[in-house]
This record gives sequence, C-alpha cells and structure tokens, in this order.
Amino acid sequence: MLFHARMDVRIPLDMDPEVKADLVAREKAYAQEVQESGRWPHLWRIVGEYANVSIFDVESNDALHELLSGLPLFPYMDITVTPLAKHPSDINA
Amino acid sequence: MLFHARMDVRIPLDMDPEVKADLVAREKAYAQEVQESGRWPHLWRIVGEYANVSIFDVESNDALHELLSGLPLFPYMDITVTPLAKHPSDINA
Amino acid sequence: MLFHARMDVRIPLDMDPEVKADLVAREKAYAQEVQESGRWPHLWRIVGEYANVSIFDVESNDALHELLSGLPLFPYMDITVTPLAKHPSDINA
Amino acid sequence: MLFHARMDVRIPLDMDPEVKADLVAREKAYAQEVQESGRWPHLWRIVGEYANVSIFDVESNDALHELLSGLPLFPYMDITVTPLAKHPSDINA
Amino acid sequence: MLFHARMDVRIPLDMDPEVKADLVAREKAYAQEVQESGRWPHLWRIVGEYANVSIFDVESNDALHELLSGLPLFPYMDITVTPLAKHPSDINA
Amino acid sequence: MLFHARMDVRIPLDMDPEVKADLVAREKAYAQEVQESGRWPHLWRIVGEYANVSIFDVESNDALHELLSGLPLFPYMDITVTPLAKHPSDINA
Amino acid sequence: MLFHARMDVRIPLDMDPEVKADLVAREKAYAQEVQESGRWPHLWRIVGEYANVSIFDVESNDALHELLSGLPLFPYMDITVTPLAKHPSDINA
Amino acid sequence: MLFHARMDVRIPLDMDPEVKADLVAREKAYAQEVQESGRWPHLWRIVGEYANVSIFDVESNDALHELLSGLPLFPYMDITVTPLAKHPSDINA
Amino acid sequence: MLFHARMDVRIPLDMDPEVKADLVAREKAYAQEVQESGRWPHLWRIVGEYANVSIFDVESNDALHELLSGLPLFPYMDITVTPLAKHPSDINA
Amino acid sequence: MLFHARMDVRIPLDMDPEVKADLVAREKAYAQEVQESGRWPHLWRIVGEYANVSIFDVESNDALHELLSGLPLFPYMDITVTPLAKHPSDINA
Repeated sequence: MLFHARMDVRIPLDMDPEVKADLVAREKAYAQEVQESGRWPHLWRIVGEYANVSIFDVESNDALHELLSGLPLFPYMDITVTPLAKHPSDINA
Repeated sequence: MLFHARMDVRIPLDMDPEVKADLVAREKAYAQEVQESGRWPHLWRIVGEYANVSIFDVESNDALHELLSGLPLFPYMDITVTPLAKHPSDINA
Repeated sequence: MLFHARMDVRIPLDMDPEVKADLVAREKAYAQEVQESGRWPHLWRIVGEYANVSIFDVESNDALHELLSGLPLFPYMDITVTPLAKHPSDINA
Repeated sequence: MLFHARMDVRIPLDMDPEVKADLVAREKAYAQEVQESGRWPHLWRIVGEYANVSIFDVESNDALHELLSGLPLFPYMDITVTPLAKHPSDINA
Repeated sequence: MLFHARMDVRIPLDMDPEVKADLVAREKAYAQEVQESGRWPHLWRIVGEYANVSIFDVESNDALHELLSGLPLFPYMDITVTPLAKHPSDINA
Repeated sequence: MLFHARMDVRIPLDMDPEVKADLVAREKAYAQEVQESGRWPHLWRIVGEYANVSIFDVESNDALHELLSGLPLFPYMDITVTPLAKHPSDINA
Repeated sequence: MLFHARMDVRIPLDMDPEVKADLVAREKAYAQEVQESGRWPHLWRIVGEYANVSIFDVESNDALHELLSGLPLFPYMDITVTPLAKHPSDINA
Repeated sequence: MLFHARMDVRIPLDMDPEVKADLVAREKAYAQEVQESGRWPHLWRIVGEYANVSIFDVESNDALHELLSGLPLFPYMDITVTPLAKHPSDINA
Repeated sequence: MLFHARMDVRIPLDMDPEVKADLVAREKAYAQEVQESGRWPHLWRIVGEYANVSIFDVESNDALHELLSGLPLFPYMDITVTPLAKHPSDINA
Repeated sequence: MLFHARMDVRIPLDMDPEVKADLVAREKAYAQEVQESGRWPHLWRIVGEYANVSIFDVESNDALHELLSGLPLFPYMDITVTPLAKHPSDINA
C-alpha cells in the first residue's frame, strides 16, 4: 500500500555540530535500512530545499506511523502524508 | 532528470458526456503512450480526489512543458511541478 | 485501518431540483449501505456547513478510493483524506 | 454534544528530558481519565505527525474549554475545535 | 451556550431580481424571528462586505445547525462557526 | 462605534512564572476597568485556544488603538480588528 | 477618522458591454462626488490589477459602510477595510 | 527600472474558438511589439502552467500599468507585480 | 512615483530595553527626516497592531529600497511593497 | 535550462557580527563566481525585503541543487525553485 510523504527538515541552527553530525548519520543509516527492506521505494531531494519527497510501501497506517516516528530526525521534521491508490491509466497497475 | 507533478482535474460539471468520454479516452491513450516511452515512470491516484501525483523523467524543462501542455486534459487541470534531485541517502542514487 | 475524511459538498445552485433530489437520495442510500457494512463507522455534520467529517475503516488505500469515488455526490465534493494510527494514550487501542 | 478537535503538539526541542517525560506522563494519565469518563470517546494519531484528531462528548462549550485547558500539554499545543451535529444519513442518529 | 459565526453571502449575480428580493425578505423575517426568541442576541454587518458577525445562544450544536440550515440564504452563504466559552476576565461571567 | 477584535495570546513559554502572574493580573485589572467604562461590552474565550473574541464600543479609531496598545499583554498578542456597522435585519438597530 | 480599503473589481467577463459601460460611468461619477466631499482623500490604482487602494475619511463605521455599499460596483467587488490611527512618528499628526 | 510580474491566464473554457484565436494572436503581436521596444526584456513560460514570469524595464509605475492594462488578455489574467532593485552581489550592477 | 508599503514590526521580546529605546528613537528621527524631504507623504498606524501603512513618493525602485533598507528597524520588520499608479477616477490625477 | 528562484534570507538576529560579516562576504564571493561562470545570469533584490529573485541556467536539476546547497547562506534561506520553459511569444526563443 503506497503513501506519498513530503518531509521538511528544520534542525535548529544552533545545534552542536557533533550532535548534528551524529543525528544525520543515524538518519541516513535508518533510511537506508528501510529502503533495503523494500518499504521506502523512492526518496528524492526537492531542488533548493532541505526537504524530500518519499514514497512508502507499507502494510498499514500504523506501520507507516511507526516507521516515520522512528526516524532519528522525526522531532525536527514537518511531515505531510498523502495516501495513494492505483491510477486507472497506469500501465503497470 | 526527474520532476514531481501534482495534477488536479477540474472538468466542468456540465460538459457533454460524449465530449467528456472522448476527452478522457484520449487522455488515457496519451498518458499510456508517454509511460511506454519511459518518460512518465510513476502515476498514482490521490485517494478521495480527482487528482494524481506523477513523476516524469525528461531531458529538459522545455521537454516537460511540451509533454504536459500536450495532455488532452491540460486546459482542465491545475498542475504544480517540482524539480527533483538525487537524495544523498538514496541507496540507488 | 482508519482514515479521516472531510467532505465539502458543492452542488451547483442551478441544478434541476428533481435531479438534485434524486442525487441526494442515492447518496443517502449508498452512505447507509456502506455504514451497514461497518466500513464507515462515523459520519458527522459540521455545524453551519454543507460538509461532514467521516471516519472510514477499510482494508487499503485502493479500497477507500473505490468507496469514495463511488459516492453519487463524488463529482460535487471536495474531499481531504488523512490516514489515522493508534494513539498511545487511547484506552481502547 | 460532540466536538471535533485537531491538536498539534509543539514541545520546545530544548525542554529538559525529565521535565518532558513527566509532562507526557501526566498528559497520558489525564487523557485516560477523561476517556474513562466517556467524555473523550475517540483519540487517533495523525500518521507522520505529532498530532491527534479527537472527538469529545461534553455538556457545553464551557465544559469543553475547561477540559482542554486542563491538559498538561495545553500550553504546548495548537488546538482547533469544530462543533459537530447529527448527520441526516447517519444510521445511528 | 454561545457561538460566534461569520457569514459571507454569495448570491449569484444573475439571480432574478424578484426571486432575490423575496429571498432577502424571507431571510430578514427569519432572522428577526430568531432574534425575538433570544437565540440570536447579536448581529452586525462587517464594514464594506456583504457579510455579518453573529452571536448565537442555543442549547446544543444540533440546535445551532438546525437554526443555520433553516436560513433562507443558507445555500448562498459560507458560514464559519466558533464555539465560545466564558472568559475569566469577563465582569459579567 | 463598534469593532470586533480577535486576540491571540503568545506569552513566551520560558517567561518567569512570577513575571507572568503579574502580567496576567495587570491584564485582568485593565480589562475589567475598561469593561466597567462600557467601552468593552463583550469578551469571550475561544474554546480550546488562548484567545478571545471581543467587541469594543469606542468613539474613534485612535481611541481604540490607544485602548488596545495599553493592554499589558499587547506585546504578546496578535490582534485583528474588524469595524462593524448596523445590520439591516438587527431588531435593535 | 481614517480607513484603508483595498477593492478588487470582478465584473463578469460576459456582462453586456453597454451595461458595463453604464456601470463604470456611474461608478466614476459616484467616486468623484465622494472625493469632492472630502471623504475619499486618496484613490490609487494597483499596478497590473483591476484593483485600488483607497483612504476614506468618515465620521463613523456606519457612514463608511453606507458609502461603500452605495458604490455602483459594490456587488462586483471584494473590499477589505482596515481602520487607521495616528502614527507617533507622523510629522503631521 | 525593473519589475517582476507573474501572469496567470484564465481564458473561459467556453470561449468561442475563433474569438480565442484572435485574442491570442493579438496578445502575441502586442507582446512582441513591447519586447522589440526593449521594455519587456524577459518572458518565460512556467513549466506545466498557462502562466508566465516576465521582467519589465519601464520608466515609471504608471507606464507599467498602461503597458499591462493594454494587453489583449488583461481581462483574463491574474497579474502580480514586484518591484526589483539592484542586488549588491550582481556583477553587472 | 508612488508606492504602498505595509510594515510589521517584530522586535524580539527579550531585547535590552535601552537598546530598544535607542533603536526606536533613531527610527523616529529617520522617519521624520524622510517625511520632511517629501518622500514619505503618508504614515498611518494600523489599529491594534505594531504595524503601519505608508505611502512613499520616490524617483525609482532603487531609491525606495535604499530608503527602506536604511530604516533602523529594517532588520526587525516584514515589509511588503506594492507599486501604485494613477487611478482614472482620481479627481486630482 | 532555466530556473527561477526566490530566496528569502533569515539570518538569526543574534548572530555574532563578525561571523555574519564573514558569512555575507563568502556568499557574495560565491555568488559572483557562479555569475562569472554564466550559470546565474540574473540576480535582483526585491524592494523592501532581504530577498532576491534569481534566474539560473544549468544543465540539470542535480546541478542546480548542488549550486544552491553550496551557498554559504543556504542554511539561512527559504528557497523556492520554479522551472522555466521557452515562451511561444518570446522574440528571442
């Protein structure tokens, strides 16, 4: 089941650089682990912004919330989730 | 080069049903032809709305505008385009 | 799996009264049939508006879109869907 | 009498972790006590956000404000309240 | 129990003048009848707009929706309702 | 001459509790003094928010600005003023 | 007593040209008469828009509403009124 | 003196095709004439929209309004004008 | 050449009172000097807000930016500039 | 390939003046280097704001994101990118 998410990152400008580096490294590791599992099939940067567009493929709403709230950057992000359905003109649907 | 687009369809409620059916059929044929070409890799319906989220893979901004303005439904849609870049945590990038 | 939806009805002011009465009657029958099935557990009117807040309990995003796009009033409504998850403080969760 | 509320939590990122843990624990206890009383029949998490959708069943506007302003997290939340009425198509109304 | 409502009137510009005059006359009669009953204690025009700010004093949300949806101009208005509570600094509360 | 005002209070979360208590006490005293003078005939709390809706009855725009900017909480509030006029359907006008 | 108003004109695109010419002529005559009276001291066009910014000098809110609702174009305009006060740095105040 | 303008075209969907073709042809001729004069140095299409971003180089605000309101499509466009100044980092300024 | 500006002042609540007093005094002196020069013909307070509406009469966009960015409060203000043109119904134009 | 960007600068008001001076100097050097390369053909100040409108000419979305995220002020800016295409009425296209 697919979901679209836009995530805007708002790390405080005065965060300690080491704390930030560690946070960003853990975010990357987590993101890649979820991608490997097949549950985060697409992840793109929005040009000019510290933000991404993501597609998630999960079994339920609860599973998606658990995944997202587990992101190390979760407390520093504004996330908007949009549920997706098959499009009647999609040649792969 | 990837672009994200959200398209909201606003066909007038009083459009002649045959005209509308023809328009929608031509839209579907056009959309599928572009998908076959590899330039429209993803097309999803937004749940509960007559709208879609699409990902386009084109060589230039001009090519994307030509593609979008050629959609039979173009005069009846509000389209918002967002350019995408590689994300540093994307395992496929 | 639960979803929240807000639906704003915008029937054209000049719709033929008989056509409108028939449409509204079919909407009611459809809504009640879905409620009986257990997939539309809550339906409330927003005070002062021709709009409702609904909770849906469906198996997937695709199922929800099929349900919503089957509403007789679908072409005349603006619908916004929000996916819901269990809340950690919910005593029934 | 039913009311819909959306609550967005904005706890300062630099709050002392013990203070925050205590605050969140008191919020949960308060929320569960109100739920037990029957005055907060529904409480859902919005997927991907530190926010909830709630339904309250109270005797008056004053009672609802007293309930909400008593929430331990009240100073850290943006709350929007919408009054609800019976929907003519609700099979339980 | 008090509610605040803002009502914006949007009568179609091409409505037949007699139909409009009759509609507005019925609106005025209805509004004055509700005022006489004590359930619409305040009604003010917003300067420069075809809109009003109203205060209603009703026994319940359902009563307010019934009152508002009975307005002859209801199909031609955008109404936003806000529930009010006693203010701790109000000398009359 | 009547004016509608919505006031949203935004006291910094880290204000010293004694300073805040004093500020709020002075605000209440000021508000009650103005009410006693007849220039602030209505003051209501918005349910679920640290905000109020007020009606002022003053002789001029300058008088209203002087009154509002004299509020002890003025530096901590977002205020929106809307001028009101007699409504043709008001039975008291 | 001064008020700021922004007025956006939305004449229907299909209005009969003679009807429109007459309407616009009457608007101009009315606007100039009010200017002559000293109650509309400033009237500017917003560059690129069919809109204006105006300053009115009237004795009361009711007087301003009467003046504005008497504009021949009133049914075709969106008007937003903002009350003005003396500025402490104004050398003429 | 430079100005930035965004223009969104909203031609009615039911405009007679010949009338529309004539209108669009006159718009193009007018736009090219102004470009030739050096007063409209840049004109770009916004990808996916019937809209443009333009830069104008004119002697005054009045000259810009005269230029814009003379566009054959002026009654069918929403235009937003932003005045531009030299940027201190511009290597050509 | 006339421009309309709305300026909202946002001085940090924790600014040192002496620093603030000095800043505000310098702002006033600067504002009055520009007014004396004839380039700031109107300056009004918006009722209930720490904000003003101003009209500037300057020779160019660059001159206006230089004037505005020289305001001692410039770093603490949100300013929106709108270019104005002669209105065809203005009796003084 | 052309892109339009609006950049709003939000440097914290309490940044150390030397740190800020260094940051702004590096921003200017970077901006001028990119301009020299031909990839940043236009850069304008928005009158009255600490903001600019820019046109970029780059080979791809990825190249633009790399360019923008390399700006020394990038962490302190809100940037909105809009892809541009040739306009059919552009005499140079």
